[in-house]
Amino acid sequence: MDRRKFLRSGAIAATGATLAAPAIAQASPSVTWRLASSYPKSLDTLFASSEEMAKAVYELTDGQFEIQVFAGGELVPPLGIADSVGDGTVEMGHTGSYFYMGKDPAFAFGTAMPWSGNARQYQAWMHEGGGNDLINEVLTNFNLINMPAGNTGTQMAGWYRKEINSLEDLKGLKMRIGGLGGTVMSRMGVIPQQIAGADMYPALERGVLDAIEFVGPADDEKLGFYKVAKFYYAPAFWEPSGELSYFINADAHAALPKHFQAALKHASRSSGAQLLHRYDTRNAAALQRLLAEGVQVRTMPEEILRESYRQTHMLYAEMSDQSASFKKIHDHMFDFMDKARTFTNISDFAFDYVGYQAQQGNWPKS
Amino acid sequence: MDRRKFLRSGAIAATGATLAAPAIAQASPSVTWRLASSYPKSLDTLFASSEEMAKAVYELTDGQFEIQVFAGGELVPPLGIADSVGDGTVEMGHTGSYFYMGKDPAFAFGTAMPWSGNARQYQAWMHEGGGNDLINEVLTNFNLINMPAGNTGTQMAGWYRKEINSLEDLKGLKMRIGGLGGTVMSRMGVIPQQIAGADMYPALERGVLDAIEFVGPADDEKLGFYKVAKFYYAPAFWEPSGELSYFINADAHAALPKHFQAALKHASRSSGAQLLHRYDTRNAAALQRLLAEGVQVRTMPEEILRESYRQTHMLYAEMSDQSASFKKIHDHMFDFMDKARTFTNISDFAFDYVGYQAQQGNWPKS
Repeated sequence: MDRRKFLRSGAIAATGATLAAPAIAQASPSVTWRLASSYPKSLDTLFASSEEMAKAVYELTDGQFEIQVFAGGELVPPLGIADSVGDGTVEMGHTGSYFYMGKDPAFAFGTAMPWSGNARQYQAWMHEGGGNDLINEVLTNFNLINMPAGNTGTQMAGWYRKEINSLEDLKGLKMRIGGLGGTVMSRMGVIPQQIAGADMYPALERGVLDAIEFVGPADDEKLGFYKVAKFYYAPAFWEPSGELSYFINADAHAALPKHFQAALKHASRSSGAQLLHRYDTRNAAALQRLLAEGVQVRTMPEEILRESYRQTHMLYAEMSDQSASFKKIHDHMFDFMDKARTFTNISDFAFDYVGYQAQQGNWPKS
Repeated sequence: MDRRKFLRSGAIAATGATLAAPAIAQASPSVTWRLASSYPKSLDTLFASSEEMAKAVYELTDGQFEIQVFAGGELVPPLGIADSVGDGTVEMGHTGSYFYMGKDPAFAFGTAMPWSGNARQYQAWMHEGGGNDLINEVLTNFNLINMPAGNTGTQMAGWYRKEINSLEDLKGLKMRIGGLGGTVMSRMGVIPQQIAGADMYPALERGVLDAIEFVGPADDEKLGFYKVAKFYYAPAFWEPSGELSYFINADAHAALPKHFQAALKHASRSSGAQLLHRYDTRNAAALQRLLAEGVQVRTMPEEILRESYRQTHMLYAEMSDQSASFKKIHDHMFDFMDKARTFTNISDFAFDYVGYQAQQGNWPKS
């Protein structure tokens, strides 16, 4: 990447909130924060969500509380958000909590857990079921507060150069996948690779990689994977939902007036809800275009799903043995998900199922 | 109902926002609005959501904008919200948009449409797909602005004294059901009845009604239907999602300072998102209790679903012939839903499906 060009575009991002201010705004805000993102501006659905949160805070406080948004790498390393926010280098970050599970495995619960729940179930657990409170009990040790920042929905299991028909087909498969999903896949024979954004496409094109998992149709389409890998698999059992995080420095938060704290809370929830609506809308449209390009959608074979389910739960048992905080949150989450799934089966899933029958079966409309 | 007791509890609701104010709040707010609800306080999940919205607005504006919340019937008739808000009797209402489809069929789209989409798909259409803008083009004729207020999720098809095994079993069935769902059911032989809240349970108990549809496990459990009707059917094809509405007087909204408008917008979105999380959490817990009481959950037979699908689309064709605004919004919504469903099938539905297989099939965890 051209570093100067990157810095210029970053500078525009940093002043975006100011440009969007109403003409009657105060001459200078009483509080100015800096938000460091893990994400580049090119991931526009994700990145714009943090700008919209900042804009909402600015509007809600009549220009008195300004959050300046900086793209990934501009101020601090993209995967160094937890440290940079915790030590006060920046007051706030936009990131994926699970990047930091090396500090404490409890960080994983802030984003996605293999074989947990869909976005509705996950967000219910976080916001109403007590999940985020449990996460924040751990994050307080790092001087951090986690505010959920919206969800991608169930992600895709990625792009594969060849069809995957059995567990045998995973043996030796070089795949770009990280986190707990990468650990589970490695126990099924996959060779997980960590490859940064710009290098993914050429690696898949040249066969350095056999497969790549990223997000879903809207983000994946931009990176062009469909041009070099024909098979698009569903679903990502490792990310049945993917929540983003705002990390906030706990001292900086405590120093805010109450109505600025309220602005942060409600702007995060509002822009977070909008993020999922936007992903749902853009993913649906992008999928239409990908199908028109001849992309072959496949579902992971049951043999692989069953083995991944077994490996996932064995991994959870190991991690629970090693970490009391992991076990506490894990047990709470999965108890919640079991009950949530029983209800979903007779509500949204039941309707989705018959809606699918009607659509696929062309049920008569007259 | 004891009217004095009702008024007393209403008075507490009206001052609830004041009691929750921070100690340092201003002596008197600069703007005070009254919100009239269609709902009684006893529907606590729904009703509390409007109180939480008002509390958020109060906190966001540091006590400068107070919205006083009044329960259904206290200020204006529960189903008279559109008129009362439009003519400025109150500045704001909390209601179901579809109650007012007699004014214009476009009001129906603000709540639920038979055989449309689940809550994720519906909210994506409303907030990101342009749906709410289309609805507000019509509501402006009534001096109203619609702000989506959160969703119940896919509702249940209700409580039945006898099993429903075929279309024949619907003939002459006396059922409490209204709106477009009632029209579709009447074309399949059901005799729809409109029965008010407190009268529903005794009517079902005495056999004046054979069936009742209401909301979902959490709300239904409170009304005790499971004690007198054993069979609980899924899903409500007529309410695959149920969105609540805030109606706002357009003149009153235009007169607000911009940051008060921002407070209304983000407080509605934030408390609306929370409403769905709360329904999901409470419905899952209530279902566990209902199952323990011996409730028999059933899925509507395919014969009935197919016929309801046909009748629904024939009704839409008739309504589109009669109303250009209905046709415009209908075509926009169902085009969106077709694409959304195609994507859901390979994302959340695909995961829900395998999650269900794993749970029901007790896939090995070690």
